[in-house]
Amino acid sequence: MIANTIVASEFDLISRFFKRPVPAGMLGGGDDCALFRVTPGLELATSKDLLLEGRHFFSNVDPYTLGHKSLAVNLSDLAAMGAKPVACLLGLALPSFDEDWIARFADGFYALADLHGCVLIGGDTTRSQTGVAISVTVFGEVDPAHAMRRNAAKAGDDIWVSGVLGAADVAYRLLAGSLTTESGSGQPSRGLFALSETLLEQTRAALETPVPRVFLGRRLSAHAHAAIDISDGLVQDLGHILHASGVGARIDEGLLPVHPALQNLSLEDRRRAVLAGGDVYELCLTASVDQRDHFERIGLEAGVPLTRIGQVVAGAGLEVYDQAGQLIEPLPKGFDHFRD
Amino acid sequence: MIANTIVASEFDLISRFFKRPVPAGMLGGGDDCALFRVTPGLELATSKDLLLEGRHFFSNVDPYTLGHKSLAVNLSDLAAMGAKPVACLLGLALPSFDEDWIARFADGFYALADLHGCVLIGGDTTRSQTGVAISVTVFGEVDPAHAMRRNAAKAGDDIWVSGVLGAADVAYRLLAGSLTTESGSGQPSRGLFALSETLLEQTRAALETPVPRVFLGRRLSAHAHAAIDISDGLVQDLGHILHASGVGARIDEGLLPVHPALQNLSLEDRRRAVLAGGDVYELCLTASVDQRDHFERIGLEAGVPLTRIGQVVAGAGLEVYDQAGQLIEPLPKGFDHFRD
Repeated sequence: MIANTIVASEFDLISRFFKRPVPAGMLGGGDDCALFRVTPGLELATSKDLLLEGRHFFSNVDPYTLGHKSLAVNLSDLAAMGAKPVACLLGLALPSFDEDWIARFADGFYALADLHGCVLIGGDTTRSQTGVAISVTVFGEVDPAHAMRRNAAKAGDDIWVSGVLGAADVAYRLLAGSLTTESGSGQPSRGLFALSETLLEQTRAALETPVPRVFLGRRLSAHAHAAIDISDGLVQDLGHILHASGVGARIDEGLLPVHPALQNLSLEDRRRAVLAGGDVYELCLTASVDQRDHFERIGLEAGVPLTRIGQVVAGAGLEVYDQAGQLIEPLPKGFDHFRD
Repeated sequence: MIANTIVASEFDLISRFFKRPVPAGMLGGGDDCALFRVTPGLELATSKDLLLEGRHFFSNVDPYTLGHKSLAVNLSDLAAMGAKPVACLLGLALPSFDEDWIARFADGFYALADLHGCVLIGGDTTRSQTGVAISVTVFGEVDPAHAMRRNAAKAGDDIWVSGVLGAADVAYRLLAGSLTTESGSGQPSRGLFALSETLLEQTRAALETPVPRVFLGRRLSAHAHAAIDISDGLVQDLGHILHASGVGARIDEGLLPVHPALQNLSLEDRRRAVLAGGDVYELCLTASVDQRDHFERIGLEAGVPLTRIGQVVAGAGLEVYDQAGQLIEPLPKGFDHFRD
């Protein structure tokens, strides 16, 4: 129910919170379409994601972090293509007009957009009868010779991941109540609660304010073959590269960069989080072995760890070996919106 | 609730229904981003709309027409800019996996996309916990010298509208139960029911399968000053042109092209439908008086009536005069998602 005291015009809302000036040469919101030019010789890279309350975020999430994440998950797709962000569109459906909420959402969105020079040029707001729904479309530019496509992995390539894995999945499961830390601690209940609180503190930022690897993706694009961002879990997303490239891979669990907060979890929980946990937004890339020096240098310059986790091999399928050299079977499954 | 028998992978769904081949030179769905080139010298025009079940369409709508309309409302924005459609992205949130529903939705979407050479190059599907949510982003190309911007109207311009007005609003209100034909007929109840059924038959296509005026917009763009598509009602959308251009306008109710099915409605219902009814997707344009021959010829060639309804004047504000020459006050309000 919308109280009659909540009366605000859609157009007021747009102009108050989402209509900062756009650079010369771009036509922003306030016309039928937004207009902009693409640099001659470059291709336009575009991606969109739809985020729904209750499905992709909790209803009590801080709107600032939600604004950040709505854009971050889309910028991450540009990063995985090696594209430079240029502009974005925002579609926002809200059940009511909560001025503070919208202002905080806009602040979080614009803070990340400004950092990447990604200009909000238009969009659409509407009133939802259910929960909040957010749809973002991003535009980037990329040199087609360097775009990191999923089908470009070659047998013999190294497989690399950026950052550390597993934290977002743990935070999500703590917030959803589907993970307890019991299995890893054996402490009494008061201690258990404290341990969960600490673990949530340590992992929550990975879930709510993921850092899209835009700068890293652009720097690596001249050196990598294939790339993908890990939105649905390493096993599943690397699987997309392998399938598209017609190759297989072997990775070693012991080489995977695990978030340090996960050290007290059971092997099963940690393995699930690292191999199958979604919402990560780190990059998984393949590159020939003669690129190792470049990768290490670029990772150091960007301040983001880049870790070699295995090799692309001829054939098909992904094999993951544990630290004893045993094949892990079956592999934990990744996130699939229509199955999980 | 999702029955356990409804098990289908998101990726199967995408590849089965939404992965038709894309032309050479474009990279479609199946990578982090879609890639395409913009013709040198032209600008990219882009727009997006978010459609929610219960808010923008009824839950029992035919999915074929919903697929059509989801794209049509976005193509209409390109039409109002004079842009040529190139590509689109589709975000689709569904509460369950209903194969027939998705197939019909895809058929309706692709039929309109194919007609306009608008290639579906990517998107995002997810499971919704509430109703269906649809987010479409379209891309077009436009010569910046001919893009029809809202701020380009000039005092002395003619004001034109394409097609006929009012039918979509009537169909919507009949389906929502907020319009009876009592006021216009005075017939007994059996006759009333039959009259409503006939009126719905005559107006429903305007609501459910609006025709985006893409060809017309492209032909008129070299001859018009300002343009907008009538999504929120003539008064409100023309008001956007006037506000952006710093001018006023005078239009004559007697000149407005009214859908013939509305002839038996009361003056009040008809006026509301024609002046303030949304979801129309006809174009409202302004052009200098020396363009009348061009407009009439182009309308004839396109098979779409183009009607002069008034003039742009110096000053501010919109005045509408009835057939007796009296100023209509107050004007019926247009559609605003956060107010109505």
